[in-house]
Amino acid sequence: MQINGERFLKDLHDLRQIGAAGVGKGVVRPAYSEADVAARRWLAGRMREAGLRVEMDPMGNLFGLAEGKSILIGSHSDSQPEGGWLDGALGVVAALEVARAAAEAGGPAVSVVSFQDEEGRFGVTTGSAVWSGHLSQSDADALTDHRGVALGEARKVLAEDVTGPVDAAQFTGFMELHIEQGPTLDTAGETIGVVSDIVGIRDMNITFAGQQNHAGTTPMHLRKDAFQAVAAFTTELQNRFANVVTPATVWTMGHVTLHPNASSIVPGRAVFSMQWRDGDADRLGRMEAIIRDLAAEIAAARGLEVSFGGMLGLEPVAMDARLRAALEAAAAQVAPDRWRIMPSGALHDATNVSRLMPVAMLFVPSIGGISHAFEEDTAEHDLVAGVDVLARAVAGLHDS
Amino acid sequence: MQINGERFLKDLHDLRQIGAAGVGKGVVRPAYSEADVAARRWLAGRMREAGLRVEMDPMGNLFGLAEGKSILIGSHSDSQPEGGWLDGALGVVAALEVARAAAEAGGPAVSVVSFQDEEGRFGVTTGSAVWSGHLSQSDADALTDHRGVALGEARKVLAEDVTGPVDAAQFTGFMELHIEQGPTLDTAGETIGVVSDIVGIRDMNITFAGQQNHAGTTPMHLRKDAFQAVAAFTTELQNRFANVVTPATVWTMGHVTLHPNASSIVPGRAVFSMQWRDGDADRLGRMEAIIRDLAAEIAAARGLEVSFGGMLGLEPVAMDARLRAALEAAAAQVAPDRWRIMPSGALHDATNVSRLMPVAMLFVPSIGGISHAFEEDTAEHDLVAGVDVLARAVAGLHDS
Repeated sequence: MQINGERFLKDLHDLRQIGAAGVGKGVVRPAYSEADVAARRWLAGRMREAGLRVEMDPMGNLFGLAEGKSILIGSHSDSQPEGGWLDGALGVVAALEVARAAAEAGGPAVSVVSFQDEEGRFGVTTGSAVWSGHLSQSDADALTDHRGVALGEARKVLAEDVTGPVDAAQFTGFMELHIEQGPTLDTAGETIGVVSDIVGIRDMNITFAGQQNHAGTTPMHLRKDAFQAVAAFTTELQNRFANVVTPATVWTMGHVTLHPNASSIVPGRAVFSMQWRDGDADRLGRMEAIIRDLAAEIAAARGLEVSFGGMLGLEPVAMDARLRAALEAAAAQVAPDRWRIMPSGALHDATNVSRLMPVAMLFVPSIGGISHAFEEDTAEHDLVAGVDVLARAVAGLHDS
Repeated sequence: MQINGERFLKDLHDLRQIGAAGVGKGVVRPAYSEADVAARRWLAGRMREAGLRVEMDPMGNLFGLAEGKSILIGSHSDSQPEGGWLDGALGVVAALEVARAAAEAGGPAVSVVSFQDEEGRFGVTTGSAVWSGHLSQSDADALTDHRGVALGEARKVLAEDVTGPVDAAQFTGFMELHIEQGPTLDTAGETIGVVSDIVGIRDMNITFAGQQNHAGTTPMHLRKDAFQAVAAFTTELQNRFANVVTPATVWTMGHVTLHPNASSIVPGRAVFSMQWRDGDADRLGRMEAIIRDLAAEIAAARGLEVSFGGMLGLEPVAMDARLRAALEAAAAQVAPDRWRIMPSGALHDATNVSRLMPVAMLFVPSIGGISHAFEEDTAEHDLVAGVDVLARAVAGLHDS
């Protein structure tokens, strides 16, 4: 089969216009936002034009289905609060192009998907988590974003587009093309990364509750300052982790909310996000124990209460050998000596989908390793090369 | 002159209904909010009924003026984002009652004021700062709240109420009744505190700017995490202050904003409020030097940029000897053996007004020392005792 690079790039740029914001090619298209809904409806139209049957499940996961058994390709079209034009969108539009090329070539059967809330407005890869049965719809509906909006409320904006559950039994496997979101390929001057496995992740909110009071009349030794507790926790955590983590382990406190968040008031409550990732499930567990113990220790020492939100966890996942071999063979054809096998430090929907079918992933470079930012970008010839590898792998699987 | 305790308490409870929120007697009435505007218009009506001439200056400071030379009494009717029913409101309604009682007694001439934005939506005691000439209207208009709204825009909601500048030369002095906002009087079982001096305050925003990036693919050693810098600054600051501060010194980081504030993104920017208070102006300066040096040191060590917002500073202020003596004499009559002389750890409009005329303050207890919170409260007999002391002091000054 033969992909059409120009057709693919035009679709990619057209999708970028829906929610375009910030500098350069920045995009603001969080799950269930006006821009996200508009993007899914635009994608549905392109799917129909490609001869695919459009279905949407109650979560808002959008499918373009081929007849009979098919291989599923795709990613997600929602973005971070401040995202780039490729994170997710690349994999969805690439799948659309491969489906079109396959149809034009008379097969194989290729279906397309755009999962919902991969970027975690409400959690972590929420859409594929529900579709794969890892998370129940009712549990998902109870999740709230940082402004307190429940997912169950937010997803109503797509209610009229929902057709019902989508049966996973019709798919023979799942493949996802994504930007690396790290510096490895870009610094090595390589074009393709075939993923060996995806690291595991843990993510939960932690709340310190102390005593809100006047910032001028409350002596330091009588304060129960929730933010001081967060700062002490953050600083000491690095010491506690020292003998447990590897250079590949990461942990992040990306969200912090103080209450009432005024300069003349001792903060009475602080809520923050604690997220950590590693390829070793045992290490993730040891880190969780350290986090819970340290938070409890600091709360007790300062007379505060600590509480832990529900934890969203995903285990490390190895890619399917057969699908991965097809991607490696195609990469060797398209980018000889400019591809490698590598792990994914970023989380992807493929982690959830692996519960239902064989999965595999490939990466194209991220310039400067930058993503989850307006500046995220990749050279267009690398983007097209990625689609080409995907198409050749699909054809190879069909022939084999 | 004879105050009417029931009339005073009814006004105080009526005012509490404007912006009533949260638990108990909670009030949400920040500067220029709908509730703040409604409260000022209600107060203007009560001033007219008391035979006072109502004037409002361009900042929104509301005056009820007696004829000729008069003593000015009052406080502020704006509240914290989450405030109590007494912080500010008590002093304004008490002034209203003293003005009424004085008028009924045929003198002396008492004027009433409710200053604007004492709670610092835009800064620190912004309304009295402009009225006293400490802050220019144009500089004040450029101040923004934590949502980025400029004061110059916000104050337009009162434009139709503004009558023009109010000449301070007509006032012989200023007195303010306020809740203590600390635990001293309540724990001692005392009713009245006559203020000796008000501590000085420094308040500024500090911004750390690093690199926003993906929380899964950016190795820890390559991160420029703005929140990690804030945490390190917060923890180390306590050590740097150790040999400089006294048990009466306080410092607070009450506001923190991360950007983009998402759990899967390394924070690229963090803005936080740094406020510190002490009775010694030299110590305030030494603390500022430590703050600026440490922030620059931490930014340099981590490859981040640091910037400092404009600093709002107010010097420690001693109360006027003559006004204070009148308050002490009245306190001895109303609450023999249940009053004391004490400093004010909280900032008040009297600090600004002291640039224009002699000022004095008195406190009534705060139950549990709690304020800047919905739970703030004081026994009603203590509230009435405070108004009685204020009235007797005014009469005493008149006779002397």
